[in-house]
Amino acid sequence: MRLGTLRLAAPGGPTPAATVAVRIDSDAVAVEIPGAVDVGALLAAPDWRERAASAGGPRRALADLEPWAWAPPVPRPSKIVCVGLNYRNHILEMGRDLPEHPTLFAKYPEALIGPYDPIVLPAHAADAVDWEGEVAVVVGATARRLDEAAAAAAIAGYAVLNDVTMRDYQYRTAQWLQGKTFEATTPFGPWLTVTDAPPAGELRTVVDDEQVQHTPVDDMVFGPAALVAYVSQILTLHPGDVIATGTPGGVGHARTPPRYLRPGHTLTTSVTGLGELRNDVVAEA
Amino acid sequence: MRLGTLRLAAPGGPTPAATVAVRIDSDAVAVEIPGAVDVGALLAAPDWRERAASAGGPRRALADLEPWAWAPPVPRPSKIVCVGLNYRNHILEMGRDLPEHPTLFAKYPEALIGPYDPIVLPAHAADAVDWEGEVAVVVGATARRLDEAAAAAAIAGYAVLNDVTMRDYQYRTAQWLQGKTFEATTPFGPWLTVTDAPPAGELRTVVDDEQVQHTPVDDMVFGPAALVAYVSQILTLHPGDVIATGTPGGVGHARTPPRYLRPGHTLTTSVTGLGELRNDVVAEA
Repeated sequence: MRLGTLRLAAPGGPTPAATVAVRIDSDAVAVEIPGAVDVGALLAAPDWRERAASAGGPRRALADLEPWAWAPPVPRPSKIVCVGLNYRNHILEMGRDLPEHPTLFAKYPEALIGPYDPIVLPAHAADAVDWEGEVAVVVGATARRLDEAAAAAAIAGYAVLNDVTMRDYQYRTAQWLQGKTFEATTPFGPWLTVTDAPPAGELRTVVDDEQVQHTPVDDMVFGPAALVAYVSQILTLHPGDVIATGTPGGVGHARTPPRYLRPGHTLTTSVTGLGELRNDVVAEA
Repeated sequence: MRLGTLRLAAPGGPTPAATVAVRIDSDAVAVEIPGAVDVGALLAAPDWRERAASAGGPRRALADLEPWAWAPPVPRPSKIVCVGLNYRNHILEMGRDLPEHPTLFAKYPEALIGPYDPIVLPAHAADAVDWEGEVAVVVGATARRLDEAAAAAAIAGYAVLNDVTMRDYQYRTAQWLQGKTFEATTPFGPWLTVTDAPPAGELRTVVDDEQVQHTPVDDMVFGPAALVAYVSQILTLHPGDVIATGTPGGVGHARTPPRYLRPGHTLTTSVTGLGELRNDVVAEA
């Protein structure tokens, strides 16, 4: 089952556009889920799986939807926890030891944009904007001090996220937060794929026509259930919360010379079975 | 004007206790503010100053209130931004240069507790729990890309916060988040003091009867308005958002030998004019 959030008007108006949660059926039709303004609100209902599966609201062909219609599936998670240094091959190829504990940092929800929204480079932070393709875990139940088996059961499913990062701000100080949470720069979606199976297949990040990241997603040091279990020892995860599971090698900052996103680029991020984000990079007006 | 949030029943029940926002008058009476469940909800109304000042709801003598009645003034900020390394004397005494940019990291709202709630040491993270007394800025208006003068006007006022930190988790990796955001360990309050003037006077942290931190609060490298202005270049601050402005010298981890909070301790944190937090430290049941 795939669940998305659709905007009912183009963004950019004086108030945020109203949204509605939809189930995306295999015949390429989005079916509205009555009573749920977005997937986050839907997940807050304990019977969300049944409500989503049985919903029979108004239907729209995907082919008729404008790109702006797609909001982040959970537009305002109560929290986003990001993971650093989590791909085994990348850590080993850099000559480092595998970490004993996950590196965690935060991103505030204001950073999120929809799967096809433009990435607007902030005028004062446009010089070192980098890609970080990732698998995002979406939490589907309250999770507190769970073991891995229970943590797996608390996962609603997965989506694609690009943890777009201002490298200059990230490295202004030892704490990465400020480079990770610029307003409206993190594409997320295109939908939540509800599944009990952790993602398999491959993550790909493409800038224009050049593949810049490409890795099997089962190469994580800390997999989705391990991450949910770990975070749940620290604090409560709520339905709709997001864990961004880290990026593999291939980021622009580590290249010689470094490469960054520039106006005119198109950033494409995909994970086998989870769909594709496609975001034009534009200069600030 | 002082604004607080009162619980209408003791915490710990199956659902969170209902709360109400109050104005705390100089005759030691809390006056309910109709229609506002907490100070965060109040601040979301553009006319919050007038609503709070003119409120004439039910009245309660402070002397009749149990300690558990005091919730964090903003129980669920949309975000908490924390600042590291921000006291000039402490940086210079350690032989470091003053920083060019503020060090920012996050704390999730689940970390907050009321001003007189116990700090329960998590059984699996009880060994290196440290104090960090701080001044908290509470945002009173939407703030986006403001200069310092406009940022000052977007501040609702100030409160006291103790950024209680699990040093072992903080230093498990290079990113501090996981040691900073343990559930229900960060006392905040006792109320929001609404004022245009940045705090003056002194911050004091006391463990049992021993003063462990003591510093003038105007010794910050980045003052409240500068911090709001800086963060607002990165993303939007919303009414009720909190910036914890950093701690001065005197933390337990930097002592020889290190000292940490233990069951039976009482942690008292105060700032001249802003009130006092008083939290008993207890072992997990």
